[in-house]
Amino acid sequence: MRIPIDRNSPTPLYEQIEKHLRQGILNGSLAPEARLPASRQLASDLGVNRITVENAYAALEADGLVYSRVGSGTYILPPNPLPKISRPGDETAWPLWQRNLPERSLGARAAVEELRLTAGRADHISFAGGISDSNLFPAEDFRKVLQAVMRRDGIAALEYGDRRGYAPLRETIAHILASQGLQTSPENVLITAGSQQALALVSQLLLEPGDTILVESPTYSGALDLFRALNFRIIGVPVDGQGMCVDLLEKQLQQHHPKLVYTIPNFHNPTGTCLSGARRRELIVLSDRYNVPIFEDDFVGDLRYEGRAQPALKALDPGGRVIHVSTFSKMLMPGLRVGFLVADGPVYDGLVKFKRVNDLATSSLIQRALHDYVTVGRYQAHLRRSTHIFRKRRDAMLAAIQRHLSGGIDIDPPQGGLFIWLKLPGNLSADDLLPRAIREGVDFMPGGNFFLDGGDGAGWLRLNFVVHEEGWAEEGIRRLARAVARL
Amino acid sequence: MRIPIDRNSPTPLYEQIEKHLRQGILNGSLAPEARLPASRQLASDLGVNRITVENAYAALEADGLVYSRVGSGTYILPPNPLPKISRPGDETAWPLWQRNLPERSLGARAAVEELRLTAGRADHISFAGGISDSNLFPAEDFRKVLQAVMRRDGIAALEYGDRRGYAPLRETIAHILASQGLQTSPENVLITAGSQQALALVSQLLLEPGDTILVESPTYSGALDLFRALNFRIIGVPVDGQGMCVDLLEKQLQQHHPKLVYTIPNFHNPTGTCLSGARRRELIVLSDRYNVPIFEDDFVGDLRYEGRAQPALKALDPGGRVIHVSTFSKMLMPGLRVGFLVADGPVYDGLVKFKRVNDLATSSLIQRALHDYVTVGRYQAHLRRSTHIFRKRRDAMLAAIQRHLSGGIDIDPPQGGLFIWLKLPGNLSADDLLPRAIREGVDFMPGGNFFLDGGDGAGWLRLNFVVHEEGWAEEGIRRLARAVARL
Repeated sequence: MRIPIDRNSPTPLYEQIEKHLRQGILNGSLAPEARLPASRQLASDLGVNRITVENAYAALEADGLVYSRVGSGTYILPPNPLPKISRPGDETAWPLWQRNLPERSLGARAAVEELRLTAGRADHISFAGGISDSNLFPAEDFRKVLQAVMRRDGIAALEYGDRRGYAPLRETIAHILASQGLQTSPENVLITAGSQQALALVSQLLLEPGDTILVESPTYSGALDLFRALNFRIIGVPVDGQGMCVDLLEKQLQQHHPKLVYTIPNFHNPTGTCLSGARRRELIVLSDRYNVPIFEDDFVGDLRYEGRAQPALKALDPGGRVIHVSTFSKMLMPGLRVGFLVADGPVYDGLVKFKRVNDLATSSLIQRALHDYVTVGRYQAHLRRSTHIFRKRRDAMLAAIQRHLSGGIDIDPPQGGLFIWLKLPGNLSADDLLPRAIREGVDFMPGGNFFLDGGDGAGWLRLNFVVHEEGWAEEGIRRLARAVARL
Repeated sequence: MRIPIDRNSPTPLYEQIEKHLRQGILNGSLAPEARLPASRQLASDLGVNRITVENAYAALEADGLVYSRVGSGTYILPPNPLPKISRPGDETAWPLWQRNLPERSLGARAAVEELRLTAGRADHISFAGGISDSNLFPAEDFRKVLQAVMRRDGIAALEYGDRRGYAPLRETIAHILASQGLQTSPENVLITAGSQQALALVSQLLLEPGDTILVESPTYSGALDLFRALNFRIIGVPVDGQGMCVDLLEKQLQQHHPKLVYTIPNFHNPTGTCLSGARRRELIVLSDRYNVPIFEDDFVGDLRYEGRAQPALKALDPGGRVIHVSTFSKMLMPGLRVGFLVADGPVYDGLVKFKRVNDLATSSLIQRALHDYVTVGRYQAHLRRSTHIFRKRRDAMLAAIQRHLSGGIDIDPPQGGLFIWLKLPGNLSADDLLPRAIREGVDFMPGGNFFLDGGDGAGWLRLNFVVHEEGWAEEGIRRLARAVARL
């Protein structure tokens, strides 16, 4: 066999030989099952050391291109024919498991798909979002804090850190909660990637597919999406002006034996209502009587513009009944992805370990920066400032609705939070209204999104009243009124 | 009824009345079912407006302390007795669901619990960890990049951003992968909170509790922990010097019909071996024949010190068979919590949506900073520098083992990655060795951690060779040798 070798090349001789043979095998000029020359023979043909040839053969064997039979020699392996490459766009070329992915209801409602098209369009006024006005995010303060943390902690800020979360941040959270009447210890706080992850961890730890979860109806669409994706059985309990209708809950508990009750007691998403004090106590009593944990989603509990705060469910918890969850995302900076849960009893350790297997930990750097930001009182100042601004925006939007949309519109003005929940007059459908509203340059979240059965919310829509300045919001309501008039 | 009111107080009159009545109800001096005075009567008693009294009664009613019967008056509700407070330390006081949490095997092996005690102890040399030397993390460069991003992007860096991940970072990742021979598009990249989250998402999307997953035996303990927590049936396929024994795989596929094959083809954790080229092709063929997806965990694929890189399984994928996952955690900075997966076909959209319901998104700020850091070529420079340093550390540790631990020790020197996998002489047990090693001031990860049945790894231990400088590592091996001698 003739193999061109170059003794002046920087490529070692064995590699030159190996490359040549490899090429021949791959392009088929060396046929499968053909025997390679004995190493002694090829070495003598090429005028190289026998070890050099043996090294080349060994490299080919390691890659599965040749095999050696003891006492017989080295043979070329038939190439392993890979499956044919799919043509792009040929759906039938996907493997069967891809064409039959487990049913997880991950699709969005058609009405919501429509909202995507408006994103970033100039002059469009969106009331659909779930966060506060990003222009109020304390970006410059946070930049300085990040700098200080990196200069002070350096490498430590880039390591995994405590799996429960950065200890000083857990301490700060315990202090903030205590100031809101919820006594807890940093040892009962677990930092999560936003409250959404807390919800995912708790529900996946406590439920298996097919298990039942009780929710308010309507409720936060991100919770419904999660529970649907996890194939839970979801049972809804109606909401009125006092929050979840706890008097209707007991029958559901008896009938369905849920593994978890998911509730948003403050400035409920989407209705904006608060659970009354009496119902809070009743809920705790039922949790105890029917041995069912309560997940308390307090996503904007501190954004109160008037009225008296009720105690957190967790503050009424005699021990281990309630898992309390909140976040810095809604008010401060959603992109940080830092939330937290408070739990006591064996479930706390279970959640710490379940968090670890799910994503190891939440960014240590972001936690340290958030801790620095929050402790210096800036969080409280930011909250006061936001509350002041948002109260005025709420009043302005309510007035604008009164002015432009009055006929037959039904609203219960919220005492806090982000949302106005609005019933359209007559039998008008929010899903039908949305495309017309988008043409007028405004949007909202249609009520169907928040119900198990989208049809139940057909007449409702949710408006985020904190996200735009008063004048701009009024213009949005004016456009909405035009769309309603056309419908 | 006499209620002391102070007309000079800043507290409104209705609130003074309400507070007084509330106190009486809660301390029992106003008995349940007692009727409150008619509002007209009380108003006249106190010399206040009737509306003031009605406001006080309404506030009490909203809180569930009183109720009104039409035409009859306002009555005190019996207080809702909350369940008794648990005494701390009384385990039987937890609700039943807490005492019977779903079996999720979230406990750690006793041997590993021992490792926690050594954390942070001065003069202790740990070879147990799974990450690289944090002293090499580019903290100062990263600080500057963070600054630049916050100054440039401001608020945008603190919003949710694209749910698939920051588009320019996905583009950079596609470029890096292309340079490693894996052609893909940013549209097929999903950013995750480290590779651990990618693993959690893929396995939870494709499997339900009780479904079967195939893994190498031994394999990454964090994957075993996750799969156990999710109650999957786990089947192990042995590993030899060429990686997973793919010739034994077909029988397992026929017998167990797994929903996923989890593999670490490069510098396998814990054994350090690489899957041969022939086996890679065979694995793709089997994936196709048995309609089973492959999860390729390439956690340190680019940390190669010698030898030729094999193509990624994803590079051999004819379309939609392989989900490829990698991370910036191992080499760069674990505290960032940024990893990524590459997938094509319907499963990609499913994963994007499943990520969204699990934690909405990964920190936009960190993604932007990472993108800036990586594009300017610093990642590649950092990789070259690390590879150079780690190669020397590997050689030094192999030499130290030769010098101090030679008798009967069995090692296959790894061509890259982080780990040396070491067989103890005779029937010595790594679990027995660990406490003795800790007393000598050194530790390691015992082999039992990486096996389905911990007993199978009794004679093995995993050493992280990149984490300490040569001299310090040699001292560690010397201590380990003393512990072995004592055993």
